[in-house]
Amino acid sequence: DYTQKVIENYTNPQNTGVIEDADGEGTVGNPVCGDIMTIYIKVDENENIEDIKFSTFGCGAAIATSSMITQMAKGINIDEAYEITRNDVAEELGGLPAVKLHCSNLAADALQKAIENYKKER
Amino acid sequence: DYTQKVIENYTNPQNTGVIEDADGEGTVGNPVCGDIMTIYIKVDENENIEDIKFSTFGCGAAIATSSMITQMAKGINIDEAYEITRNDVAEELGGLPAVKLHCSNLAADALQKAIENYKKER
Ligand code: FES
Repeated sequence: DYTQKVIENYTNPQNTGVIEDADGEGTVGNPVCGDIMTIYIKVDENENIEDIKFSTFGCGAAIATSSMITQMAKGINIDEAYEITRNDVAEELGGLPAVKLHCSNLAADALQKAIENYKKER
Repeated sequence: DYTQKVIENYTNPQNTGVIEDADGEGTVGNPVCGDIMTIYIKVDENENIEDIKFSTFGCGAAIATSSMITQMAKGINIDEAYEITRNDVAEELGGLPAVKLHCSNLAADALQKAIENYKKER
């Protein structure tokens, strides 16, 4: 079942939405259920993530992990943010059901893609 | 992609939550993603559905169809509500992506189970 931290992040997700003038954006798909997840970042002159948002039609596990990773990444340097693993996020949430691993991996993958996209655009 | 009706029902879902003293309750699982959906009903003395709520960690398609079916079922007789098909809900939403059929079927199945549960409890 779901931890209290997961339920909180699902029922009251942080940093949802779209950044229209994003500096980087990454989209990944969930091969199991067909859902997609996009993460948008704004990067300041020190290469810190000054704003980050996510957008998905994905399930509760996808929403909770995205809400959590956006909070973990906000304000830190992009190279540090790039190192946040799926496990870091799951740990911060107090664990996730095994059946939801595909969903919970979307957020970390999308963030890495968004950072790669920012670097390529430079 | 998703119709405006789907997006509305996902971003502003109606009738979410739990009815603690429900007269009937039905839970179904999505075999593809492992998500579950529960629908709760309160039935009045004329066997009309006076209150209905849903609860899920499922995806946007699951949330949108549940939000829609609970609006369709509220206030009508349980036998009429039992006849609401997956197709009725999908039509009311202006269609759903094929990849999300498993998710969108949860709501109609859970409502039927809740009505069966109410009848059995009588
Ligand atoms: S992906 Fe799980 S309910 Fe839709």
